[in-house]
Amino acid sequence: MSGDGRREAVEPMVGIVMGSASDMGVMEAAANVLDELGVTHELRIMSAHRRPQDMLSYGKAAGARGIRVLIAGAGGAAHLPGMLASVTTIPVIGVPVPLAHLDGIDSLLSMVQMPRGVPVATVAIGNAGNAALLAIRILALSDPDLERRLTEYHEKMYMESREADASLLDRG
Amino acid sequence: MSGDGRREAVEPMVGIVMGSASDMGVMEAAANVLDELGVTHELRIMSAHRRPQDMLSYGKAAGARGIRVLIAGAGGAAHLPGMLASVTTIPVIGVPVPLAHLDGIDSLLSMVQMPRGVPVATVAIGNAGNAALLAIRILALSDPDLERRLTEYHEKMYMESREADASLLDRG
Amino acid sequence: MSGDGRREAVEPMVGIVMGSASDMGVMEAAANVLDELGVTHELRIMSAHRRPQDMLSYGKAAGARGIRVLIAGAGGAAHLPGMLASVTTIPVIGVPVPLAHLDGIDSLLSMVQMPRGVPVATVAIGNAGNAALLAIRILALSDPDLERRLTEYHEKMYMESREADASLLDRG
Amino acid sequence: MSGDGRREAVEPMVGIVMGSASDMGVMEAAANVLDELGVTHELRIMSAHRRPQDMLSYGKAAGARGIRVLIAGAGGAAHLPGMLASVTTIPVIGVPVPLAHLDGIDSLLSMVQMPRGVPVATVAIGNAGNAALLAIRILALSDPDLERRLTEYHEKMYMESREADASLLDRG
Amino acid sequence: MSGDGRREAVEPMVGIVMGSASDMGVMEAAANVLDELGVTHELRIMSAHRRPQDMLSYGKAAGARGIRVLIAGAGGAAHLPGMLASVTTIPVIGVPVPLAHLDGIDSLLSMVQMPRGVPVATVAIGNAGNAALLAIRILALSDPDLERRLTEYHEKMYMESREADASLLDRG
Amino acid sequence: MSGDGRREAVEPMVGIVMGSASDMGVMEAAANVLDELGVTHELRIMSAHRRPQDMLSYGKAAGARGIRVLIAGAGGAAHLPGMLASVTTIPVIGVPVPLAHLDGIDSLLSMVQMPRGVPVATVAIGNAGNAALLAIRILALSDPDLERRLTEYHEKMYMESREADASLLDRG
Amino acid sequence: MSGDGRREAVEPMVGIVMGSASDMGVMEAAANVLDELGVTHELRIMSAHRRPQDMLSYGKAAGARGIRVLIAGAGGAAHLPGMLASVTTIPVIGVPVPLAHLDGIDSLLSMVQMPRGVPVATVAIGNAGNAALLAIRILALSDPDLERRLTEYHEKMYMESREADASLLDRG
Amino acid sequence: MSGDGRREAVEPMVGIVMGSASDMGVMEAAANVLDELGVTHELRIMSAHRRPQDMLSYGKAAGARGIRVLIAGAGGAAHLPGMLASVTTIPVIGVPVPLAHLDGIDSLLSMVQMPRGVPVATVAIGNAGNAALLAIRILALSDPDLERRLTEYHEKMYMESREADASLLDRG
Repeated sequence: MSGDGRREAVEPMVGIVMGSASDMGVMEAAANVLDELGVTHELRIMSAHRRPQDMLSYGKAAGARGIRVLIAGAGGAAHLPGMLASVTTIPVIGVPVPLAHLDGIDSLLSMVQMPRGVPVATVAIGNAGNAALLAIRILALSDPDLERRLTEYHEKMYMESREADASLLDRG
Repeated sequence: MSGDGRREAVEPMVGIVMGSASDMGVMEAAANVLDELGVTHELRIMSAHRRPQDMLSYGKAAGARGIRVLIAGAGGAAHLPGMLASVTTIPVIGVPVPLAHLDGIDSLLSMVQMPRGVPVATVAIGNAGNAALLAIRILALSDPDLERRLTEYHEKMYMESREADASLLDRG
Repeated sequence: MSGDGRREAVEPMVGIVMGSASDMGVMEAAANVLDELGVTHELRIMSAHRRPQDMLSYGKAAGARGIRVLIAGAGGAAHLPGMLASVTTIPVIGVPVPLAHLDGIDSLLSMVQMPRGVPVATVAIGNAGNAALLAIRILALSDPDLERRLTEYHEKMYMESREADASLLDRG
Repeated sequence: MSGDGRREAVEPMVGIVMGSASDMGVMEAAANVLDELGVTHELRIMSAHRRPQDMLSYGKAAGARGIRVLIAGAGGAAHLPGMLASVTTIPVIGVPVPLAHLDGIDSLLSMVQMPRGVPVATVAIGNAGNAALLAIRILALSDPDLERRLTEYHEKMYMESREADASLLDRG
Repeated sequence: MSGDGRREAVEPMVGIVMGSASDMGVMEAAANVLDELGVTHELRIMSAHRRPQDMLSYGKAAGARGIRVLIAGAGGAAHLPGMLASVTTIPVIGVPVPLAHLDGIDSLLSMVQMPRGVPVATVAIGNAGNAALLAIRILALSDPDLERRLTEYHEKMYMESREADASLLDRG
Repeated sequence: MSGDGRREAVEPMVGIVMGSASDMGVMEAAANVLDELGVTHELRIMSAHRRPQDMLSYGKAAGARGIRVLIAGAGGAAHLPGMLASVTTIPVIGVPVPLAHLDGIDSLLSMVQMPRGVPVATVAIGNAGNAALLAIRILALSDPDLERRLTEYHEKMYMESREADASLLDRG
Repeated sequence: MSGDGRREAVEPMVGIVMGSASDMGVMEAAANVLDELGVTHELRIMSAHRRPQDMLSYGKAAGARGIRVLIAGAGGAAHLPGMLASVTTIPVIGVPVPLAHLDGIDSLLSMVQMPRGVPVATVAIGNAGNAALLAIRILALSDPDLERRLTEYHEKMYMESREADASLLDRG
Repeated sequence: MSGDGRREAVEPMVGIVMGSASDMGVMEAAANVLDELGVTHELRIMSAHRRPQDMLSYGKAAGARGIRVLIAGAGGAAHLPGMLASVTTIPVIGVPVPLAHLDGIDSLLSMVQMPRGVPVATVAIGNAGNAALLAIRILALSDPDLERRLTEYHEKMYMESREADASLLDRG
């Protein structure tokens, strides 16, 4: 499998969905991490409020199309991940997108505080990269190859942190 | 028109919708105020997350059924009013229902922070009575009789406040 | 009716009121949306604190002048929409204007947390465009032509969201 | 002057105003402190939203009636002290009354965040006793006798704190 | 597989971990939901701060023991889910447990705001039942039988919501 | 009395105190307003934490020196106004100075939440001009000439607001 | 040294100071932990606002009296630990005491947000026991015997957590 | 001892630890203050989440290596200081590092709200200099020479504050 997940978008494993094109600045980090670890994905704009029915149809069809995890980013009254989660049984990961005001606390609460029955797996404000890594943890449960790439990714983070430590010590 | 709006529910002017039966403690104040001012209404449980498609269908059909204002109460990640607003052009009023934690600040932000294009008319946390009064202000624009009853309601509030003032003065 | 609502300000349907000229940066979006959908309106500066009596007089007279909805924007201890609502029975929509500190959370709470009896229909922080769309939803209840223009506006939003989605798919 | 300020309410120095009778539980502490230090006062219910014009008239007339300080308590979208301050040049002290939700943070921000030109002297959430003591500090500037009583009050607080300290030491 | 997951705890699919026995009141809802849907699990107390090394060892060994998802609940400075996530590549779900103060906002932020590289799938404050349902969504990706039971669970929620709606309509 | 209060600082009526020179950007607005209304004042740096004893000595002596109101600005753990209030019976006005983080909410709470017995008259975050106007309201109680200048100041604000309104109407 | 630190209060190592007797419910946990680990201490009521000069004198003298750590608890505008820290060079630990409103967030910010130069070592809201343990960590740096007792205390916590874990496993 | 603590890093008294190199902008102020007061120290990057085992090993070994105080800075879900505190009995000081969103309130709560048994001495958001001064207060308890330098540091702050006051008076 090549590192460029988007070419293989005909059979995406992960759907990255966002409320509007303006969320792309935050959400592309998810695509980049999936690319880096070789996970096919698609990027979609599915406004919960401007295209509610399309959005629900997309969510309902996702599982049958072979998508195994949805990553949804939205800001403010961020209803997208919760509404997607209401029409599918595959896991939905929410990325609170910070808007011009309130630093994303509205986006976070609108996502994470889902009522009993319909969970959204929420990650940190603006941290779409972590949403991708969470999707990869989920996919790696049944994909030993991906699990190996994820372990290497962790080892790389470990080494980078060690090297940063070492170069700080050198500087001392 | 009698003061009992619910009997006439075959032709409701206002739809009061809530996410679950547990919201009834907060939301019945809306029904009571509508009854008091003689506005027909219906009470419905339409969970955005447990019945997403029914909820959207309800919202889409509301206007054609003669409903002119929707009042929607929900708590936590409170998506109900925003999703209803996304499928209708009639006004949607949101009542943030406070849950066991966070005192309703999550419910408030999940409702009020709607993105450009789809407004929710949000009232105070837990204040379903005011949602009803806002609906009545809207309906009274084209119903002089209702406008008169609303004016009387204001006059009654005015007199009650005066009397509370007077009895405090007497006590002094 | 022309698209330029302001020329027809002699018979405004909507009054857009703000506390000071510095709120204009936020509030003009309301005027723009009303213009776009052909709703007459007037723009006024009515400080609740610097011109309390003028402000109340304006609010009291609005209904008789033919104004059917008030949109009021203010920041900080934002008393303008609530005080206007106290002297009229027409609907009042509040726009929390964010100031230099607190990101508008003070403006929001000062507006939305109105006591029983006097509601303010509050929209998102800084989102005056949505206040206009809420006013239009209200006016459209008795104006089929406006209702049609609002439906077209929704369809345009729908198409724009679809196109943004499509161009993202193309890019992938 | 007797210790019972309320008997002398015909010539009150301080007006204690509140939005509704339900604020009395918080606001009576102001009356008690004023009584204790022999300052005449009156207690009034002046809802900013249910009696806006009466409220403004009260505020406008207060100075000429000999009232020198207004203490205003309100909860939620607490507009009362700010609106009173807008129609008088005497000092207005605000007491944020905590309601069932949000612990008074809405009341606090609605009061303290007044725009340039019209200050409200805000005290702690629910602390009407301190509002009275602030009024007394103001009145004592031109009333040496009251200044002496206030100094004694401070000395009493000092002694009570010392005694609490001593009895804790004894217990040790 | 029987409905009683705990008997089969020798081969748990899910590890439910909490910081102290006092978290059990919140966390047992996770066990109940897993039992209801027939997912084996184990319940463990693994304080991040009182048994840091045991906690890390548990997290490191979990995957090899066949555990596929960890659910971790903690309150205040809630480090447990994040630290577990740092030593495993299986998904970790965090449940913010509300303590006596701050209503769980500290627990929520301590969990959800994980830095790039190590995600925690955070659910609503105190909503351990949803953590279980999220774990089930993940496990169901490779367990069609479980996927079927989850779908039935959703259908049951749907029917319950419909019935609540119907009984409200009857009452009207 | 000339408009330049600072020349006459030998007999200041108001003491403007701040924790450090970096607060001057916020606090000079107080001096400017006092100058504009012809109230003598002095500006002092009195860090509660770096010069605690000097600060208390200053506060204790202020009344006897003829100072009638203290205005104290500080940021973060803002103890200055509360500590000054603890050693004097003249009114102390607190200005919450916003620092690099938290937008002044820490400064506000550190000031306004004073315990029973020792009030601080708190104004809006960063609004030192209003602190000056509050001081002037207090001083004007026993200075009819100042009361007249304050009334003129209000009239000027009124006229400026009217003119802003008029020029907006012209633009329409 | 006996386990009862209070008998030996003539030579206290730790001063536990609080603003008022009402803080004792929170602060006695500090005394209990110090007793348990055999650290002498004294309990004092030293209101920053009712006895400012006594409080500063106490703080200044503490070091010379042999006190090595101060623990200060206060609520609301909690100035006590910061003011003590301003007059001594020994470490000062702050315990934010939660009051009736705001859940201690005001107390926390009033303490922790100290300006550069004068730190307060702040612990969790209402967690006076941890303040004692922090004092013990400090004292144990130069007291091997105390270091041993603290290590035993940690081992006991470890064993208690293990046992809670074991009894949960048994229950399973 | 020279003023350059870093050269003597072979025998550091204080370990300054941070989660990533990006925290250095905040944390170097700690090193600067320690240098200024002649306290040896080392700077390390020890990510709680990318190098959990190294981090714990570092914390466990610190005391035996002669380190007497740890200063740990981290942002967001800031687990570093709490986890270090869980494996050592020497005092751990936490510096909440503000990230791009939430202004450090997440970092603060993640640190300060530690459960009973394991305290973190938390200082102000972003105030690493105060963390160093707190470490110095602790070390000075058993180092009279350092206590003298700290007293001089306080005197210098006192003089600087006096001079700022004087130059403000001159300007007046």
